[in-house]
Amino acid sequence: MAEMRKPIAVEDAINHVWKHRIAGETEHVSINDCDNRRLAEDIVAKHPVPPFPKSPYDGFALRSADTAEANRNNPVSFKVVEHIGAGQVPEKSLHKGEATRIMTGAKIPDGADCVAMFEICQTYEKDNHSFMSIKRTMDSGQNIIGEGSEVAEGEKLIEKGTIISPGVKAVLATFGYSQVNVARKPVIGVIATGTELLDVGEELQPGKIRNSNAYMIASQIIRAGASYKYIGKLEDEFDASYNMINEALEEVDILITTGGVSVGDFDLMPAIYEELGADVLFNKVAMRPGSVTTVATNGQKILYGLSGNPSACYVGFELFVRPVLQYYLHSEHAFLRRVKATLADDFPKPNPFTRFVRSYLTYENGRLHANLAGMDKSNVVTSLAHTTGLMVLPGGTRGFNAGDEVEVLLLDDQQGQREFKAI
Amino acid sequence: MAEMRKPIAVEDAINHVWKHRIAGETEHVSINDCDNRRLAEDIVAKHPVPPFPKSPYDGFALRSADTAEANRNNPVSFKVVEHIGAGQVPEKSLHKGEATRIMTGAKIPDGADCVAMFEICQTYEKDNHSFMSIKRTMDSGQNIIGEGSEVAEGEKLIEKGTIISPGVKAVLATFGYSQVNVARKPVIGVIATGTELLDVGEELQPGKIRNSNAYMIASQIIRAGASYKYIGKLEDEFDASYNMINEALEEVDILITTGGVSVGDFDLMPAIYEELGADVLFNKVAMRPGSVTTVATNGQKILYGLSGNPSACYVGFELFVRPVLQYYLHSEHAFLRRVKATLADDFPKPNPFTRFVRSYLTYENGRLHANLAGMDKSNVVTSLAHTTGLMVLPGGTRGFNAGDEVEVLLLDDQQGQREFKAI
Repeated sequence: MAEMRKPIAVEDAINHVWKHRIAGETEHVSINDCDNRRLAEDIVAKHPVPPFPKSPYDGFALRSADTAEANRNNPVSFKVVEHIGAGQVPEKSLHKGEATRIMTGAKIPDGADCVAMFEICQTYEKDNHSFMSIKRTMDSGQNIIGEGSEVAEGEKLIEKGTIISPGVKAVLATFGYSQVNVARKPVIGVIATGTELLDVGEELQPGKIRNSNAYMIASQIIRAGASYKYIGKLEDEFDASYNMINEALEEVDILITTGGVSVGDFDLMPAIYEELGADVLFNKVAMRPGSVTTVATNGQKILYGLSGNPSACYVGFELFVRPVLQYYLHSEHAFLRRVKATLADDFPKPNPFTRFVRSYLTYENGRLHANLAGMDKSNVVTSLAHTTGLMVLPGGTRGFNAGDEVEVLLLDDQQGQREFKAI
Repeated sequence: MAEMRKPIAVEDAINHVWKHRIAGETEHVSINDCDNRRLAEDIVAKHPVPPFPKSPYDGFALRSADTAEANRNNPVSFKVVEHIGAGQVPEKSLHKGEATRIMTGAKIPDGADCVAMFEICQTYEKDNHSFMSIKRTMDSGQNIIGEGSEVAEGEKLIEKGTIISPGVKAVLATFGYSQVNVARKPVIGVIATGTELLDVGEELQPGKIRNSNAYMIASQIIRAGASYKYIGKLEDEFDASYNMINEALEEVDILITTGGVSVGDFDLMPAIYEELGADVLFNKVAMRPGSVTTVATNGQKILYGLSGNPSACYVGFELFVRPVLQYYLHSEHAFLRRVKATLADDFPKPNPFTRFVRSYLTYENGRLHANLAGMDKSNVVTSLAHTTGLMVLPGGTRGFNAGDEVEVLLLDDQQGQREFKAI
């Protein structure tokens, strides 16, 4: 009765799916709408930064050579020949004994090679003209931000695929990117399966539970930077279910079903894959939770049959769907960042298969600690609310103790890494 | 000429602002629109989870006592009296020698106290009736997920102020929250000052730079979970500027200006604060960058005068604006998470004042490492693109060396902490 399935190793499963990744299209959005999108192009400096030598302070631009004789007892005076604010352009070149009053950010006048801050200057009027004096020497280049001293023209500043953060947006604005090339968000269809599922607004009924996986996956899709389209709940009847999935495939880039992939009598998915002519890459993975994960391809489109168990579904998404989405979004760091951490709690269960344990991360004296987010049964939904990482316990290991070193996949990290393996 | 200002300590400045925090309103959104919003109420279990005893596997529910004599040489047979899928409700109570065929997630029938997985069962037909047999003993409670075993009714599951992540959304769906009470996003007005500023779409001109701060702050506001409203660029002329700010205050919860707060001759902000009758909390902070940060209050509204230097502006936002926004959004952990890390690079500069150094974080064997994100001059915008943390170097310290322990504020962390200080 139980269909026999051959489980494959987690890494093999990930590699199988990874072969079917495709890079997505580019779209142009206003800089006002670019937050948290992924760049579809490298950002290169279009001009030197700063584009002209400028002053970091309010003060007087002058020729350092003219201060050579200045000291506490010998103030040296300068005639103030011009007075410019930030954004105003100096028109006069400075000659010996002349200074320009200058505001923060303003361009340094020709002839000047340093800026004396207001705080060290005395000003006075004489013969209806402004003067300033200084009691110390200045160095050539002092308090001047040189043209191109921050960034040379043509320098590559930000890599394609980077998420647009506040700092990235500042760079985009600096170089005049009023329109930004970003990766188009793929649309991920979500179908829930299971006659036991109630809609979220329905009252509980005996033997039934509310559909939480579809909402959870929608949120995981958003966190991964993509868009979701909730297709609906699959019927128990083959033809209607087949048609629903077949039509959905026309509208989405990737399709996820949750539930319906175990070997129970009411699971229609295997038959639907067959009828579609989809190529099943695997239907069982040597991992906990989520062993009954199925991935199939139909042309260029990937169909994910994730487990109906919330935790298995959650883990399956992060392991198998997320990297493909990141690649679609032009990221070179498509996999979750995987780091070492100290296990904060005992985890006595043996691990016949690779186990992904819901964890939350804390820091103790600069060390990352992985805490158990709750009971690690695959059906426990509430502990997912506190999960910020997935501990990876290798198959074939016995239990772990508090203080042991473990590896953790970071779920809130924006950076990622180039491969699934520990780096 | 230079107005004398008395700098106050960073912590004092933060405490001054913090006294003026207010909690925001609550609004109801569909569960479909709740991602990344902050909960405005504690989430409490509305019913036990699971709401009924259920099966974690596909198999046969039966009475464990009936398996007492079973062993490899002595299979014990059961009559299969019912066959239920997930979501179907068992109607028959089990008596001695009876079993119910049951799918994952289905309710356990009355009388049964364990579930035998398909894999260990033999099935056969006899006299037109289904039977199964088992060759091992079962324990009472084996493979049964008891009613309320995950969560008891009334248990507090998620704290008010928590960001709605995929796991939180799954919990909301489980308990039927089709509408969710979330914190209303405050609207933060943004005004740029500086005649040297070009709009992002304009060609560079001599002595001018593009306005990057307004875009950067908009993005910081979004990252902090609030909404921004770009008011415009302040004119150099007092009356027009005053009117712009006065009108903006009617439309926003908090107002930020960038630039115009140093002691330069063209800075209008101090006079505008005075004309508004705003109460200036401080106008200089003993920190780098961002010493010329001003914060004032006007009734319940806070006016921030952040520096025009991109890095100073960035730091000023994260230190002084972000916590107030988090509190507005009902978070109990309004401050950036502050953790210890190993300094990855030499930082030879002495720190006469508390210094916030743009950093990016890496992990080495479970330890957090803080790397310098670039040249740490307050005017360097490009290094902000790679910044994921702000190193806090205490005032009065000399330079630091690679390998030293430092403290870092985590910018991408979703968790936060209850106070600014290290915990």
